[in-house]
Amino acid sequence: MNILYHVPLSPFCRKVRLSLAEKRIEVQLVEERYWEQDADFLRRNPAGKVPVLKMDGKIFTESAAICEYLEEKHPEPSLMPIDPEIKFEVRRLVCWFDDKFHHEVTVNLLYEQVNRKIQNMHEQRGSGPIASNVQAGLKAIKLHLYYLNWFLDNRRWLAGNAMSLADFAAAAQLSTIDYIGHLPPEVWNKYPALKNWYATMKSRPAFRSILSDNVPGFPQPNHYSDFDF
Amino acid sequence: MNILYHVPLSPFCRKVRLSLAEKRIEVQLVEERYWEQDADFLRRNPAGKVPVLKMDGKIFTESAAICEYLEEKHPEPSLMPIDPEIKFEVRRLVCWFDDKFHHEVTVNLLYEQVNRKIQNMHEQRGSGPIASNVQAGLKAIKLHLYYLNWFLDNRRWLAGNAMSLADFAAAAQLSTIDYIGHLPPEVWNKYPALKNWYATMKSRPAFRSILSDNVPGFPQPNHYSDFDF
Repeated sequence: MNILYHVPLSPFCRKVRLSLAEKRIEVQLVEERYWEQDADFLRRNPAGKVPVLKMDGKIFTESAAICEYLEEKHPEPSLMPIDPEIKFEVRRLVCWFDDKFHHEVTVNLLYEQVNRKIQNMHEQRGSGPIASNVQAGLKAIKLHLYYLNWFLDNRRWLAGNAMSLADFAAAAQLSTIDYIGHLPPEVWNKYPALKNWYATMKSRPAFRSILSDNVPGFPQPNHYSDFDF
Repeated sequence: MNILYHVPLSPFCRKVRLSLAEKRIEVQLVEERYWEQDADFLRRNPAGKVPVLKMDGKIFTESAAICEYLEEKHPEPSLMPIDPEIKFEVRRLVCWFDDKFHHEVTVNLLYEQVNRKIQNMHEQRGSGPIASNVQAGLKAIKLHLYYLNWFLDNRRWLAGNAMSLADFAAAAQLSTIDYIGHLPPEVWNKYPALKNWYATMKSRPAFRSILSDNVPGFPQPNHYSDFDF
């Protein structure tokens, strides 16, 4: 049996979960207690990060490398175009979300407001989110939403005419920010092209597992799993 | 004419420079004044990062996406194996150096001790390197050198029997740390397999441009461009 060691709200785990589900690769999800980083966890991945995929008896780490590997071993349905220029655009956008969006938005919002709290709870320390980081995240997300909406005004999918890994990388980050309540319906309504694209993403069978996530202490907002949000 | 907008000590620019040179793709190097981030620069790359490659009339950004694109458009000499499992290993290691090594070592040493100084010089601010970050970098580099040496005790190249993008990603990071003086001969001597590998990398024609870099205010250490270091 394939196993994905993951953390429900990790955008990198979500990107891999979406790829696996889209390609109908069955996998058992095992939640990793990342705040412990015990010997077993570090043996699975010396980098100390999730996701870790155990597939066909081998261990795979680093979400970008995992998604490329899945594409090669299970090319259908394809998440990577054939044309080298469009393929470049897919990879450029994946880097954009994995790196820039993650660093400017997800780290400042999700990690400050959720991961830090969970870590503190387990380590029994008292420090809360750092307000200036949260402010920076709230400022940055507006620019990213505007940019994405502009993109999707001109393209059906992020990298062009076909759905690709770029859409999954984007949806993986956005879905975590949506989960923690920073994208209520009134925000989505300001970006109609983006909202329309996200509604299409949400309605894919591959998204089901993501929409049914529930993190103790951080309940889903009402609209999170709703197709009509 | 192809142009690479770069910063001499940026490991991501160096990785792309090495790939271009290995594939004998001629390119004019234009140094980017990253501390300015003016309108021209942001038009070339909205992410505000180097490297930016202008090739065949198009603009390419994000070093990971650029290197994959070069591999597809100019497959010879190949920097990516054919076997999917070894290809995964190449990409995993590229992620390791671009992300983990960069974050733990390069950011803490190069960015603290060089980039911050250059930025302060231009903005006429006075803050120096943050000592705790430099300490963290010096601690982390030991673990990485040990891990790399262990790797190269068992493999001729980082990802197996053939030189690959993984070797360039590693050499790109290490060469910047070497430039700023944190890898003197007595350190290299502690890691014989790693030293041997780095000597082989240095002696490649693709490395010449990297070895002739000179950053005003930060002269090369004597051993930096020496094949016998």
